[in-house]
Amino acid sequence: MRESAHKTVVMVLFNDMLMLDVTGPMDVFSISNRLLPEHQHYRLLTVSEHQTLVRSSCGLKVQADMTLKDLPAGTDLLLVPGGPGAYGVAHPGLTAWLPTAVKGARRFGAICTGAFLLGDAGLLDGYRCTTHWNYVERLAQRNPGSRVETEQIYVIDRNLITSGGITAGIDMALAVVAEDHGKDIALEVAKVLLVVMKRQGGQTPYGPLLAAVPRDDTAIARVQAYIVDHIEEPFTVQRMAELAAMSTRNFARAFQREVNLTPMQYVLNARIDHSRKLLEGSDLPLKVIACRCGFGSARHMRKAFSERIGLTPNQYRQQFGGD
Amino acid sequence: MRESAHKTVVMVLFNDMLMLDVTGPMDVFSISNRLLPEHQHYRLLTVSEHQTLVRSSCGLKVQADMTLKDLPAGTDLLLVPGGPGAYGVAHPGLTAWLPTAVKGARRFGAICTGAFLLGDAGLLDGYRCTTHWNYVERLAQRNPGSRVETEQIYVIDRNLITSGGITAGIDMALAVVAEDHGKDIALEVAKVLLVVMKRQGGQTPYGPLLAAVPRDDTAIARVQAYIVDHIEEPFTVQRMAELAAMSTRNFARAFQREVNLTPMQYVLNARIDHSRKLLEGSDLPLKVIACRCGFGSARHMRKAFSERIGLTPNQYRQQFGGD
Repeated sequence: MRESAHKTVVMVLFNDMLMLDVTGPMDVFSISNRLLPEHQHYRLLTVSEHQTLVRSSCGLKVQADMTLKDLPAGTDLLLVPGGPGAYGVAHPGLTAWLPTAVKGARRFGAICTGAFLLGDAGLLDGYRCTTHWNYVERLAQRNPGSRVETEQIYVIDRNLITSGGITAGIDMALAVVAEDHGKDIALEVAKVLLVVMKRQGGQTPYGPLLAAVPRDDTAIARVQAYIVDHIEEPFTVQRMAELAAMSTRNFARAFQREVNLTPMQYVLNARIDHSRKLLEGSDLPLKVIACRCGFGSARHMRKAFSERIGLTPNQYRQQFGGD
Repeated sequence: MRESAHKTVVMVLFNDMLMLDVTGPMDVFSISNRLLPEHQHYRLLTVSEHQTLVRSSCGLKVQADMTLKDLPAGTDLLLVPGGPGAYGVAHPGLTAWLPTAVKGARRFGAICTGAFLLGDAGLLDGYRCTTHWNYVERLAQRNPGSRVETEQIYVIDRNLITSGGITAGIDMALAVVAEDHGKDIALEVAKVLLVVMKRQGGQTPYGPLLAAVPRDDTAIARVQAYIVDHIEEPFTVQRMAELAAMSTRNFARAFQREVNLTPMQYVLNARIDHSRKLLEGSDLPLKVIACRCGFGSARHMRKAFSERIGLTPNQYRQQFGGD
C-alpha cells in the first residue's frame, strides 16, 4: 500500500473577511489536486469560531466546515485570511485559540491583513513577515517584535508564511505547492488560474512611496509640501534647509525624525511617485516626464525608477497606464 | 435629493462553481464601494436555482441570497461563473431561466467556463466571446453561431462581456468599473487587490500553442510527431511531404484538414512551445534555446516569439521561469 501524503490545509473564517484572501489559496490547492495523484491530494478544511454562517466583506455568505474546537489534529498549514474583520475587529476567542492551533501545525500563515490576527495572538514576534502594502506601518507599530517587510509578495520565515495584498495569497499558495510537489505542478496551476509564477517588483509598484503630504504648519511639513508642489525643481539638503529657515544639520536631523526618511530620499520618492502618475495617466514621452519630475534626464529617471519600483518606466506604463 | 446611481450586480451560484470566478468580480465591486460615494455603490446579489447551500469545486460552501424566481427587477450586470459545474453538468432550470433574466438586465456575462452555461441557454449566438484558454475549442464546437476568441483576457461585445481563465474575472470587473466610474477608481482598486490594470499578451502566454501530438499511425500524425521530436531541424513543406511520402500539394491539404493549421504554422507553434519549456525550466542563454528549437538565430526567435506570445522571451522567463 502506498503511503498517504495528504496535506491538510485549514482556513480560518470570520465575519468581514475578504473573500479573495480565502478563495485564492483554496482554489490553488484544489486545482493542484486535479494534477496530483489522489494519495497526495490537499485536504481543505474551513473553521470558524462559532458554527454559523460567516458573512464576508463583499456580502458573500460562507458556511464553515466546523468550529475551532472540532478541528482534528494534524494540520499541515493553518491560514488566516485578511479583510476589515481582521484588522478592524478584536477576536478574543480566535486569538486565544490560535497559539495552541499553531503549535499543532507544521506551518501557519496569513494572507494580506490576516497578519493582524496572528500579531494579536502574539505569533509574529521574532519573525520576518509581510502584509498588504497599505497596512505595513500599522502592523509594524502593533507588533514591534516582528520585522515587517514591505517589498515582497510573500515572506517565508521558518514555519511562518505571510503574504501581501489580497491576490498575493495566490502567489503564496503557489509557492507552497512548488515546495510540496515541485515547480512544474505549480506552474501548471498558475497557467490554469491565468496568473504568472513570478511577479516583478514585489508589492512596491502597487503602493505610493509617500504618504499624503501633511499640510499642517511645522517647518518640515511646509518643506514637504513645497517639494511636492515644485517637484520639477532641483533640491539639495542645503536648499531645503533654507526653505525651512534652519541650519542644514538641524534640518536634516529634524526631517529624518519627523518623516522617517532623509530629505533626499523624500525628494526621490516624490519624484518617482509623480512620474508614476504621469505614466499612468498620460502618454507623454519619458523625456518630458523626466523633466516634469525633476529627474534631469530620461536616463537618470529610468535608472532611479527601476531601482526603486522593480519595473522599468515602460513596464510600469504597460501594466498600469491608459489604453 | 441626489439621484441614486446604484448598479446591481447579480452573481449566479451553482454546485461545483469555481470560487475565484465568483469572488474575483465580487471583491472588485465591493472594494470599489470603499472609493465611491454611497449613492453610487454597487449592490451585490447572489442567486441560485434552489435556495440551499451551494458547494463550490474547492469545497467551500456558500449560501445564496435568494432563488432565481425571487430576483428583483433591474439588474445592471448578470454574471455566471465557471467551474466543473458549468462545463460538465447540464442545468436545465438555470438555462431555461437565463434568457428571460438576461432580457431584464442591462448587461450580462460570464467568467471563465461560465460561458458554457450562456451557450447552453442560447445566449452566445451572434456574439464575439471568450472563455478559459483550455476550453476555447470546446466552447466553439458547442456554439457554432458565436465567435470564440482565444487571445484576449476579456471580450466586450455590445451587452455581453466574457472573460478568460479564472482570475480574468478580476480584469473583466475592473474594466466594468473603469467604464462605470472612470479609470482612476479602477486603477485604485487594482492596486488594493495587487493586480495590474493591463495584462500583456492576453491569454496566449498561459496555454500551449499545440495540443498533445497524436501518436496514432496516420501519415500526418507521424509527421507531427517527427517535427516535435526533431524540432531543432529545419523544416519545409516539401521536406515534411517527403516524410509523409505524399506529394507536397496533397500533404499540405491533408495536413490543414486534419490539424487545422498549415504545416509551417504547426512547425512555428512547435518551436515556440519548446522554447517556452526551455525558458521555464532552464537558464540557458537565448542563443542556445533558439538553436535547440530550430530558430536559426536568437533574433529570429525573439521576433517570432514576441509576435505569437505577446511577451518577449525575457519577459516570459521573468514571469514563468525558475529562480
